[in-house]
Amino acid sequence: MLSCSSILVNRIIDMALDEDISQGDITTAILVDPREEGMARAVARQDLVLAGREIFERAMNRVDPYISINHRFTDGLPVPAGSTIMTVTGPVVSILTAERTALNFLSHMSGIATLTRAFASAVPEGMKTRITDTRKTLPVLRILEKYAVACGGGISHRGNLSSGILIKDNHIAVCGSVAEAVARAKKAVDPSHRIEVEVGTLDEVDAALASGAEVIMLDNMAIDDVIKAVQRIKGRALVEASGGVTLERVPDLARAGVDFISVGALTHSAPSCDISLEIESGHAMGQIP
Amino acid sequence: MLSCSSILVNRIIDMALDEDISQGDITTAILVDPREEGMARAVARQDLVLAGREIFERAMNRVDPYISINHRFTDGLPVPAGSTIMTVTGPVVSILTAERTALNFLSHMSGIATLTRAFASAVPEGMKTRITDTRKTLPVLRILEKYAVACGGGISHRGNLSSGILIKDNHIAVCGSVAEAVARAKKAVDPSHRIEVEVGTLDEVDAALASGAEVIMLDNMAIDDVIKAVQRIKGRALVEASGGVTLERVPDLARAGVDFISVGALTHSAPSCDISLEIESGHAMGQIP
Amino acid sequence: MLSCSSILVNRIIDMALDEDISQGDITTAILVDPREEGMARAVARQDLVLAGREIFERAMNRVDPYISINHRFTDGLPVPAGSTIMTVTGPVVSILTAERTALNFLSHMSGIATLTRAFASAVPEGMKTRITDTRKTLPVLRILEKYAVACGGGISHRGNLSSGILIKDNHIAVCGSVAEAVARAKKAVDPSHRIEVEVGTLDEVDAALASGAEVIMLDNMAIDDVIKAVQRIKGRALVEASGGVTLERVPDLARAGVDFISVGALTHSAPSCDISLEIESGHAMGQIP
Amino acid sequence: MLSCSSILVNRIIDMALDEDISQGDITTAILVDPREEGMARAVARQDLVLAGREIFERAMNRVDPYISINHRFTDGLPVPAGSTIMTVTGPVVSILTAERTALNFLSHMSGIATLTRAFASAVPEGMKTRITDTRKTLPVLRILEKYAVACGGGISHRGNLSSGILIKDNHIAVCGSVAEAVARAKKAVDPSHRIEVEVGTLDEVDAALASGAEVIMLDNMAIDDVIKAVQRIKGRALVEASGGVTLERVPDLARAGVDFISVGALTHSAPSCDISLEIESGHAMGQIP
Amino acid sequence: MLSCSSILVNRIIDMALDEDISQGDITTAILVDPREEGMARAVARQDLVLAGREIFERAMNRVDPYISINHRFTDGLPVPAGSTIMTVTGPVVSILTAERTALNFLSHMSGIATLTRAFASAVPEGMKTRITDTRKTLPVLRILEKYAVACGGGISHRGNLSSGILIKDNHIAVCGSVAEAVARAKKAVDPSHRIEVEVGTLDEVDAALASGAEVIMLDNMAIDDVIKAVQRIKGRALVEASGGVTLERVPDLARAGVDFISVGALTHSAPSCDISLEIESGHAMGQIP
Amino acid sequence: MLSCSSILVNRIIDMALDEDISQGDITTAILVDPREEGMARAVARQDLVLAGREIFERAMNRVDPYISINHRFTDGLPVPAGSTIMTVTGPVVSILTAERTALNFLSHMSGIATLTRAFASAVPEGMKTRITDTRKTLPVLRILEKYAVACGGGISHRGNLSSGILIKDNHIAVCGSVAEAVARAKKAVDPSHRIEVEVGTLDEVDAALASGAEVIMLDNMAIDDVIKAVQRIKGRALVEASGGVTLERVPDLARAGVDFISVGALTHSAPSCDISLEIESGHAMGQIP
Repeated sequence: MLSCSSILVNRIIDMALDEDISQGDITTAILVDPREEGMARAVARQDLVLAGREIFERAMNRVDPYISINHRFTDGLPVPAGSTIMTVTGPVVSILTAERTALNFLSHMSGIATLTRAFASAVPEGMKTRITDTRKTLPVLRILEKYAVACGGGISHRGNLSSGILIKDNHIAVCGSVAEAVARAKKAVDPSHRIEVEVGTLDEVDAALASGAEVIMLDNMAIDDVIKAVQRIKGRALVEASGGVTLERVPDLARAGVDFISVGALTHSAPSCDISLEIESGHAMGQIP
Repeated sequence: MLSCSSILVNRIIDMALDEDISQGDITTAILVDPREEGMARAVARQDLVLAGREIFERAMNRVDPYISINHRFTDGLPVPAGSTIMTVTGPVVSILTAERTALNFLSHMSGIATLTRAFASAVPEGMKTRITDTRKTLPVLRILEKYAVACGGGISHRGNLSSGILIKDNHIAVCGSVAEAVARAKKAVDPSHRIEVEVGTLDEVDAALASGAEVIMLDNMAIDDVIKAVQRIKGRALVEASGGVTLERVPDLARAGVDFISVGALTHSAPSCDISLEIESGHAMGQIP
Repeated sequence: MLSCSSILVNRIIDMALDEDISQGDITTAILVDPREEGMARAVARQDLVLAGREIFERAMNRVDPYISINHRFTDGLPVPAGSTIMTVTGPVVSILTAERTALNFLSHMSGIATLTRAFASAVPEGMKTRITDTRKTLPVLRILEKYAVACGGGISHRGNLSSGILIKDNHIAVCGSVAEAVARAKKAVDPSHRIEVEVGTLDEVDAALASGAEVIMLDNMAIDDVIKAVQRIKGRALVEASGGVTLERVPDLARAGVDFISVGALTHSAPSCDISLEIESGHAMGQIP
Repeated sequence: MLSCSSILVNRIIDMALDEDISQGDITTAILVDPREEGMARAVARQDLVLAGREIFERAMNRVDPYISINHRFTDGLPVPAGSTIMTVTGPVVSILTAERTALNFLSHMSGIATLTRAFASAVPEGMKTRITDTRKTLPVLRILEKYAVACGGGISHRGNLSSGILIKDNHIAVCGSVAEAVARAKKAVDPSHRIEVEVGTLDEVDAALASGAEVIMLDNMAIDDVIKAVQRIKGRALVEASGGVTLERVPDLARAGVDFISVGALTHSAPSCDISLEIESGHAMGQIP
Repeated sequence: MLSCSSILVNRIIDMALDEDISQGDITTAILVDPREEGMARAVARQDLVLAGREIFERAMNRVDPYISINHRFTDGLPVPAGSTIMTVTGPVVSILTAERTALNFLSHMSGIATLTRAFASAVPEGMKTRITDTRKTLPVLRILEKYAVACGGGISHRGNLSSGILIKDNHIAVCGSVAEAVARAKKAVDPSHRIEVEVGTLDEVDAALASGAEVIMLDNMAIDDVIKAVQRIKGRALVEASGGVTLERVPDLARAGVDFISVGALTHSAPSCDISLEIESGHAMGQIP
Repeated sequence: MLSCSSILVNRIIDMALDEDISQGDITTAILVDPREEGMARAVARQDLVLAGREIFERAMNRVDPYISINHRFTDGLPVPAGSTIMTVTGPVVSILTAERTALNFLSHMSGIATLTRAFASAVPEGMKTRITDTRKTLPVLRILEKYAVACGGGISHRGNLSSGILIKDNHIAVCGSVAEAVARAKKAVDPSHRIEVEVGTLDEVDAALASGAEVIMLDNMAIDDVIKAVQRIKGRALVEASGGVTLERVPDLARAGVDFISVGALTHSAPSCDISLEIESGHAMGQIP
C-alpha cells in the first residue's frame, strides 16, 4: 500500500486523465457499444519488477468505478516476460478510454523499480550499504517515483526541501567554507533533522567532521578517496557516496563501507517498461486463462 | 514560445514547486542571508539539444519574480558540452530554493529534444518522412514533452483522445475486423478528423484501404512488408510506421516511403540531460564570463 | 452515458454547487427537519427533448449520496409537456438544497437538445446533411453543451483549438490569401487532422480546392452560390455551410448537397426549457403516481 | 468595475481558456509567425448594451500579458450596430488564440445586459419598480451574469442560498402552510436577512402578512390579483412579482405598485449578441480608424 | 448535520491532510505493519461542548475509507472530562496517519462551541437576547467555526460580504455621516437584506433611526447608553451590542433588551479543547469498554 | 521574508478571500464611489509582537494590485499599543473589501508571535533551551503559524509527518515497548532524520538511550524526573520537554538543562491580537501622521 497521501495521488491521476481524455475518447465513442462488457490482460513484454498496480487500478476506477481488477503480482515482485500482470473486467468503453493513462503510470513506475532492483542487487551479499534516490525526479511525479524506488529495494532520501538539511556545493560556495556552513547549521539545530554536508575532497571530509556534520556525502570522489574518507570518519558520521554512480561502481563503493549510495538516474532516466493491454471483447470472455 | 495554454503549464510548474518546496527550504533558510544577491550559471555537462528554457525561467520566477534570466541559447539549438546555457541573477535564497525544480524540467525536456533530434537526423537527407511522438508520455507532463519533441524536430501526433480518430488493435478486436471498425467510423464522420487505422498484415492494409481509411499505421511490420504496404497504398492514404522503432531502423523505413515514423521512446524513455547550476555568491558577481 | 471525462464534469458540477450553496441553504436549514424524507417530481412544463439527466443526478448526489433518482425518460427522447421526467427520493433538506443547481443544468441542456432536434428535423428525409455545433459555446459549459447537441441529433465540430485545423477569415487575412494559408497548413500536415478552410466567394472555393483543402466551409454565402460551390467541388472535399443559419434555410442548404450545416445558436442562444421540481413531503409520500 | 472577487472570476476565465486552448491552437501555430504583431477590432453586428469588456480584456491578458485593449465604450452603454467596441493590439498568435473565448464571454454578457435593458425600459417613467434577476442562472457563470444584469439596469436578487431567506412553494409544502413556514423563520431571525415568502393566492398574502413576512413574492398571479394584493399589503411588506413575466406584462405590474419584478429569462434564455473580431495583420496596422 | 456545502468542507479537509501527511507518515510507515487492525478512543481531557464529530470522521475516511467511527455523543452535547467521545476502528497505520489532523479539527471546533455555550448561558433565563458570531474568524475555517458557534447555541451573523448589508465605521467615515450612508443604502434596496448600521453615540442612534436603518449595532457603548439606546429605538429596529463583550457584561446587556450580542472572541480566540486519541493495538481489541 | 512556498501561501490567501468576498462586498458596492482613493492605518490596540505583515500586504494586493502598503515595523518587532503598524493607500472600495480578511491573518499571526515571545522570554538569560512548536496547529494554517512562531523567537519542530521521525505513545503501544519501537526505526535509518522517541518514565528514558534514540521527549514528567532524566542522558541524546507546559514552568525546565520545550498552545490557543484598520477618505488624505 502507498503510505503517502491518497489525496495528492488522486490529484495526479486526475490531471493525467484530464490530459488524455479531455473532452472524451472520440474513437471509442464511435466504435464501441457503451453496454458492452469485456476483459483485458495487462501483459509484461519484458522481465520487470512491478510497481504501480494500485495506481493502475485507481486510474481505471476514476474513469469508471465498475471496472474491477484482478491482480496476479504484488508490487516489488519480479514479473517474467510474457506474464499476465493483472486482468481488467468491465465496460469496454471505459477500459479503452483509461488504457493509455493507466499503462503510462505502470510502465514508468515499473521501469524505476526494475532499475532500482538492478542497483540494489549490485551491492554484494551481506553488506550494509543501501541504494537511495535523490530529488532529481520528474516534476509532479516524485511521490510515485519514490514509491517505485522502494518497490525496487531502494530507500528514500529526503522527500523535499522541507524534510532534510543537506548542505550542498552551492551552499558552501555562498557560506565560504564547509566549516562555516556546518557551523551555521549547528546553531539552528532542531530536533528532527541530521546535518548532512556534501564534500569533494579529503580535506573537506576533515572539516566536515571537525565542525560536527552528522552525515557526509562524498560527491564524485574516486574510489581510493572514498576508501580513505570512510577510514578517517570511523563511524563518527554516516557516509553517502554520490555522483555519476553506475552499476559497475556499486560493488566497490559498498566494499569501501559507505552507508548509502545515491543514484539520480533511478528516477530521471529509467527506461519505461514494455507493458501492453490486450482486450478480449464480451464474445470471448470465457477464454481468458 | 510555447503555443500551449500558459494556464496549464503554470499549474504544472506550481505543482512541481509545491512538491519540492512544501513548507520551505530549511537548509537554505538556515544558511543564507535573505538579502544576499548572486549569480549562477546553468551549464551543459554533455552535448544536448535545448528545450524548456522558458519553463526554467517561469519556475524561477514563480518562486521569486526578482530573479532574472539571461538566455544564451534558443530552444531547439544544439548546446555543446561545457557551455553556459543561461545565467541567473537575483536573491541567492530564491535561486537555491528553485534550483532543483527548474533543473528537473530543463534536463528532462532537453533529454527528449536531444533524442528526437537523433531520430530526425537519421532520416536520410531529402526524404519526406517525419518523426512523430505518441501518447506514451509521462503522466501530467505531456504538454511539455510534446513541446520538447517539436524542439528536437519531431511533430506531434494527436494530443489526446479528443483530438484524433485512431482505431487501434483493441478497437478492432472489439469490432471484429478492420473493415467493420473503419466502416463504423466513416458513418460518424466529422469535419475535423481523418480516420486512421492500425494494421499488422498486408491483408489488413488492403481491408483498410478498401473501407476508406485515410491514414494507415503499420504496426510492428518487417521492413519488407512495409515496402509492400506503401506500394499497395500508392498515396491513397497517409502511411505511418510504428512499433519498436530504433535509430537503426529509421533510414530503411524512410526509404520505404512512409510519411510518419512514430516513436514512443522519445517521451517515455529519453534519458535526462546532465545540466548543473553553479552559483557564485555576491562577493564574486563580477567574475562571470 | 457521457463519453467525456467524469473528472471535468464533476468539477463543473462542484463549482456550480459551490456557487449556489456557498455557506449553506439558510432558508431550508431553518425550516426543514434534517431527518425528514420526501419525494419530488421533475416535471416538464413544455414539450422538450431531454438532455442532462445524468448531470441532474450527479448534482443531487454530490449534495447527498442518499438521494436516489428514478428516471422515466432517456436523454435524447422527446418529453411531452406535463410529463414527470424523473422522481427524486431522499432527505428533503438535501433535495431542496440541490434543486436549483440540478434544474439549471437540466433546463439549459434540454434547451439545447430541443433546439438541435428542430434543426436536425428540418433536413429533408433521406438527405445526408448533418447539423453540427461550433465553438460558440457558453464558457466552461462546452462539454455539457456538446453532449446536449448530440442528444438532439447534431454532431460535434472540433472540440477545441487542439482538436481540429480550421483556417478562418482572420487566419487568411494574416496569411494574405486562401492559397497561402492552405499551403502553409499542408506543409505541417499531421496524421490526425483534415485541413478545413473558410471561404466567402466562389473564387475562394476554387483557390481552396486548388491548394488541397480537405474541407471547405462556405461562410454566409447565398443559396445560389452554395449550389454552385457544391457543383464545383464535386466531392473532392467535404462541404460545410455556416453563418446566420436559420431553421428556414436548412432545407435548401441540405438540398444543395452540403455535408454539414454548423449553427452557433444551438449553444449560445438556446432558450432554457421550463422544468420544475414539485416536492411532496414525507406525509404524502404514497401519493406519487 | 466588477465588485466581485477577482479570484473567482479569474478561475472561471482560466477554466474557459483551458477548455478551448487545451494543448494549444494547432491552426494558428502552423499559420502565423509568433513574432507578428497586429491589431483587431471587436465590432458590434447588432444594437446592444455592452457588458463584459473587463472580462474580455482579462481573457486576452491571461493568454498574453502583451495584448493591450483600447476600449471605446463603457459597460452599460448602448452600442449601435456597426460600432467598434474596442481595439486589440499585440501578438497576432495570441489574439487569435484568445479570440473565441473572449468573444464568448462578451457576447453572452452583452446579451443579458441588452435583454435586461429592454425589461428595465418597459417600466413606465417615474415608477419605483425595479427589475431583478433570479437564481435561474447558467451554472458556474452566475457572478458574471448578475454583473451583466446590473449593466442592463436590473438589480440582484439574493446571490445564492446563503445570502437570503426566501420561503418557496416547496418549503411551504413541507411546512404545511405559509403561516407555519413564516413562523419558523421568524424564530430563527438573524440580523442580516429579511424574511421573504412566495404566495400564490390572496389568502396566502393575508397569511404571509399576518405572520410577519417582510417581503411577499406574488408568484404567477393575474394582474387583478396583483393589484388587490398590493392594496392589502399597504406598504407593510415589500412586494415582488414573479413567474412568466414578459416585456408586455411589465407596465401593468409596475403600475400595480410592486417593488420588484423578477425575471428568470434575463439569465437563462438571453440570446447571445452578435459581436465579431476583425483582425488586420501587421502590414495594415496604420489603417485602423 | 452540516448544512453547508460538502464540497467546500471536503476541500478544507483535503488541504489539512495534504499539509500534514504530504509525502507520507514516515514514522508510522517504518513502525507499523500495514495489515494490523486496531481500535482507538478519542477521550475528552476536560469538560467541553462537542463540535466537529462529522469533520473528524470525514478526515479519518479521506485517509482510509476502511476506518469506521462509533460516536457516543452528538455535536452540541456537553461531554464530561474523561469521557470517550467516539471509538475509531480500522487499519492502525491509517488511524495514526490521520490522528493529528482529525484531532486538530475536533479540538478547535469544540473549543469554539464550549466558549459559545458559556456566553449563551450567561444570558439570564427567559430573555430573548441571542449570542452571535462575527466575521473575525480564522481564515479558511469560517464555515466550520460558524457551525461550531451553532453547536454552542449561538447564531450566525452574515456569512460574508455578499450576504448582509452592514454599514461600519469606515463606511460612515467615507460617506460623511450615518444619515448619508443609510440614505445611500436605502436607495439600492434589494429584497433580501436588511440595512444594518454601526453607531457609537446616542446621536448616531437617532440619525440611524431617522434615516430608516432596520438594525442598529451599538459599538463599544457603555451599559447606560445601551439602555438609553434601546429605549429610544422602541422596537423600530433590531438592536445589536458589539465590541469588547466579556462574559461578565452579557447579563446587563441582555437585561437592557438588545436583540443580539456579537462576540468576535468566539471564533478568533477560543482556546482549543484538550482531546487525545488513545490507541489499542489489535492484541487488545476486546478490552475497550 | 517567508521562506516557504509562495504558491501555497497564495492559495491560502485566495481561499480566505473567496470565503469572505464570495460574490462581492454588497455594502461597499452600494456606498462607495469606485473612483475614490483613500488611506488607512492599521493600528495596534494592544502591545504585541508583529507577524504577518507580508500576508496582510498580499491579501490586499490579491484584491487590488493598486493598493500600496507602507510598513512601519518589521515582523518580529514589538509594537506598543496605539502604534500605526502600516499605512494602506489605494482605492477605498478595494481597501474596505479586503480589510477583514487581511486583518484576520495579521491578528492571528501576531497573536501567536506575541505568545511565543512570552515563552521564549521566560527562558532565563544565557540558557541554551529553545521554545518549539508542535503539529497541534489550526488546519490549513500551519505554514503561517510556524512562521509566526519563528517571528516570536521559537523554532519549528517537524513540519509534518514526512519531515521527522517521532515515535509517540501510540506507536509504542502498537510496537509493544520503547525498545522495540526504536529498534525498528534504527533498521530503516535514512540519511536525513534523527530518531526521536516520546517517554513518560525514567525507565523508558533508559530504554530509549539503550536502544539508540537520538532525541528523547520527556512527556508530562514532573520537574524532578526531568532533572534526573537529563542527568542520566548526559548529552548522549538531545532532550525535549513536552506536555502541559505553562509560562511558569519554563524557567525550571530550562534550568534542568533540556534542549527544547515544545508548546502546543502557541498555535492552537493563542488569543488573537486586537488590531484595527482606520480609514480616512480622500478628503482627508493629507492628515495622516
